[in-house]
Amino acid sequence: MKNSILIINGLLLTMEQEMPLVEDGAIFIKDGIIVDCGTSREIAKRHGRVETVIDAESHIIMPGLVNCHTHLPMSMFRGLADDLPLDVWLNEHIFPAEAAMLNPDSVKKWALHSCMEMLLAGITTCCDGYFYEDQVAEAVMASGMRAVLGQGVIDFPAPGVPEPAKNIDVAEDFVRKWKSFSSTNKSYVQDAGHSRIQDAGYSRVVPSVFCHSPYTCSRETLIKAKEMAKRLGVLFQIHVAETREEMNMVRRINSSISGDESRDMSVVQYLDSAGILDDKTLLVHAVWINDADMEIIKSRSAKVAHCPESNMKLASGIAPAWKLVQENISVGLGTDGCASNNTHDLFSEMDMAAKLQKTALMDPCAMDARSVVEMATIGGARAIGLGHITGSIVPGKKADIIVVGLRKPHMVPVYNPWSTVVYGAKASDVRVVMVDGTILVKDGKFLNPDFHD
Amino acid sequence: MKNSILIINGLLLTMEQEMPLVEDGAIFIKDGIIVDCGTSREIAKRHGRVETVIDAESHIIMPGLVNCHTHLPMSMFRGLADDLPLDVWLNEHIFPAEAAMLNPDSVKKWALHSCMEMLLAGITTCCDGYFYEDQVAEAVMASGMRAVLGQGVIDFPAPGVPEPAKNIDVAEDFVRKWKSFSSTNKSYVQDAGHSRIQDAGYSRVVPSVFCHSPYTCSRETLIKAKEMAKRLGVLFQIHVAETREEMNMVRRINSSISGDESRDMSVVQYLDSAGILDDKTLLVHAVWINDADMEIIKSRSAKVAHCPESNMKLASGIAPAWKLVQENISVGLGTDGCASNNTHDLFSEMDMAAKLQKTALMDPCAMDARSVVEMATIGGARAIGLGHITGSIVPGKKADIIVVGLRKPHMVPVYNPWSTVVYGAKASDVRVVMVDGTILVKDGKFLNPDFHD
Repeated sequence: MKNSILIINGLLLTMEQEMPLVEDGAIFIKDGIIVDCGTSREIAKRHGRVETVIDAESHIIMPGLVNCHTHLPMSMFRGLADDLPLDVWLNEHIFPAEAAMLNPDSVKKWALHSCMEMLLAGITTCCDGYFYEDQVAEAVMASGMRAVLGQGVIDFPAPGVPEPAKNIDVAEDFVRKWKSFSSTNKSYVQDAGHSRIQDAGYSRVVPSVFCHSPYTCSRETLIKAKEMAKRLGVLFQIHVAETREEMNMVRRINSSISGDESRDMSVVQYLDSAGILDDKTLLVHAVWINDADMEIIKSRSAKVAHCPESNMKLASGIAPAWKLVQENISVGLGTDGCASNNTHDLFSEMDMAAKLQKTALMDPCAMDARSVVEMATIGGARAIGLGHITGSIVPGKKADIIVVGLRKPHMVPVYNPWSTVVYGAKASDVRVVMVDGTILVKDGKFLNPDFHD
Repeated sequence: MKNSILIINGLLLTMEQEMPLVEDGAIFIKDGIIVDCGTSREIAKRHGRVETVIDAESHIIMPGLVNCHTHLPMSMFRGLADDLPLDVWLNEHIFPAEAAMLNPDSVKKWALHSCMEMLLAGITTCCDGYFYEDQVAEAVMASGMRAVLGQGVIDFPAPGVPEPAKNIDVAEDFVRKWKSFSSTNKSYVQDAGHSRIQDAGYSRVVPSVFCHSPYTCSRETLIKAKEMAKRLGVLFQIHVAETREEMNMVRRINSSISGDESRDMSVVQYLDSAGILDDKTLLVHAVWINDADMEIIKSRSAKVAHCPESNMKLASGIAPAWKLVQENISVGLGTDGCASNNTHDLFSEMDMAAKLQKTALMDPCAMDARSVVEMATIGGARAIGLGHITGSIVPGKKADIIVVGLRKPHMVPVYNPWSTVVYGAKASDVRVVMVDGTILVKDGKFLNPDFHD
């Protein structure tokens, strides 16, 4: 049967509450969509004749990982300036490097580089915010992965946007352009003598708006950008409460504009007072938030991207991620850019997330393995507005799936598959990666000979 | 030239202060010993004719990693019981599992399994403490790796030692047996028609004494065991100040024996008062130590094994590792056993160690990448008493060397090789592993077909 794939004989983690785990599991995929899943026996019986069979014996089958926060082109700065104070790192290294090295070509090249790194590591979807985002989108399209992409908005001259006054217009143009591509997504292709309709891949790129932060965007910019995002129905991403210093910066910058009203506000309160928080707002980092902030986030149904490795490496602090999860706030995991991590590896991020919360709370039960896998898959998908498309294995969703080997010594034995994924598995254990039902990585290597693994 | 190896064209990290880094570096090895190292050009000129050439272009050449604390056979319990309170984990899962599953055969099998895992991850030396240590030693011998091994001493019936009264005798027998093997290490072999003297490999196993902890061994046991270790000139390993509760446990257990003198002592003070601390004492964990304890450790030239991942996963706390390093105390990195980590992966441990100290101290400059690589190599070797044999690349030392690939997307670009190793490299990047000049792993796979990679 054309365009049909059977993944069989694996330990299936669906990430769906009803049937989270199938010991001898299988998935039937047709035209990029998950059609059926269950035990290998029943799936093989129901869908015997397929074009491609992937035998996942001694492997875990699970949803592709969702990286909720990154700056893809920053892989060009990986390891450029580590172990430095935040201001020295940013002002003496990262900002000058961005000024010197960023252009449309370098952005596209290194965004594609990051996509390759992520795909090999089992990340099938990411949420990115940067500049020259058109080029990032082209790289994502070429890579075969799925992404929510936001053109950066910042009240300073930025790469590709020399006039800050135009930042929101540029961001809006980006959203409109990629929405229109997506709406004309279907294309006719000539295939073995027959013409048929095919997904041209534009649906894999979902545009959004990325305001850099409350301390680099004025209240007015934030409000305008959020209004635009609302009008166009797209995700609004923003760095929030990353550092302890941010609170004072927000107060200083905004007190002159807004009078005294923001003086005693937390960063989250300040954003909420500007109408920024709703169910299509992704708060990135959320390290320095208190219980009242959490209440606001919850009441607005806003989402959080938790980036433990970046927060640790920059010594920003420890986000109350376990508390957020327990409050049923949608939390996803993010690697952040390669200048502050330095890899796009959600397997190490999962391990770090679990261990960091246990350490911070002095509680070995905190952030258990299953909760962490949820953050890295369905939780992340929901956080970036793609919970209906990806992040779990259930009929009707896109076939964004990875197959993870269980045979290497560090993966033996398996008592609890959630533990195995979080505390055992490494990015290098990913053997098969599929996005939209297209197999991109097999035996840990790209099928596309132009890609570098 | 027989038994000669040239590793050439690599980015050489020697871990020696005088010449830490050679950009286009090479090493010449003869009969298992590092004979010469420098630039590829000069080494190739001086040692042109060799039996084996390893081209390390686009690779880092560095010392094999040193894992300063582990319990090798516990890989059989990997993932058995995670995310649980410490007492439930230990009393309801680990202790019963040990009682049910430990025997000489299972210990040997899973110790060898751990050795395979470690070798693939670039660990060429480990320091182990467990029971049935004879079988652990046989596994280490078979694996080809180097290890300091201690038979466990504990004042309870233990696997293989049902009578606690005999625990020190059993430990002494172990030390004497493996010291005697080592002293008769040279053996004649028939090789291509010529007989010659060869290292039989026994020198790779260095016996030691492993007292479990100050709360599971009485003061008398500790004193006797340390006296035995001193008499035989071997390393004395002990878990120290792992948890906050340990201080009270030590006080309770010992106040009846030693009167009031230990009531107000810290764990380190208590051990010091029993004469346990000297330059052949390895304090494992050292999480709950204060400045006075650090002074004692420094004045006695005792060593520390830092196990951040285990401490985090069990929510034990954060060891003051950066302060210990700054005090010039010998600190190595340890993975601990697989029941509490869950992998033998010093690459992730290095990354974690750096990020954890930055987080704890709110200082991104703390525990810089080069210091971390030192902990995982020469620092660890010194901590376990093998600083003269392994842990750095310098003429005269054993050829315990790894070659780490720089071509995968997550390793590109390289601005600073220390950063690349700590924040970029994964265990899976290890391509070549050599112990005692014997190549065990090539292209990331074991040369021994009986071994599983």
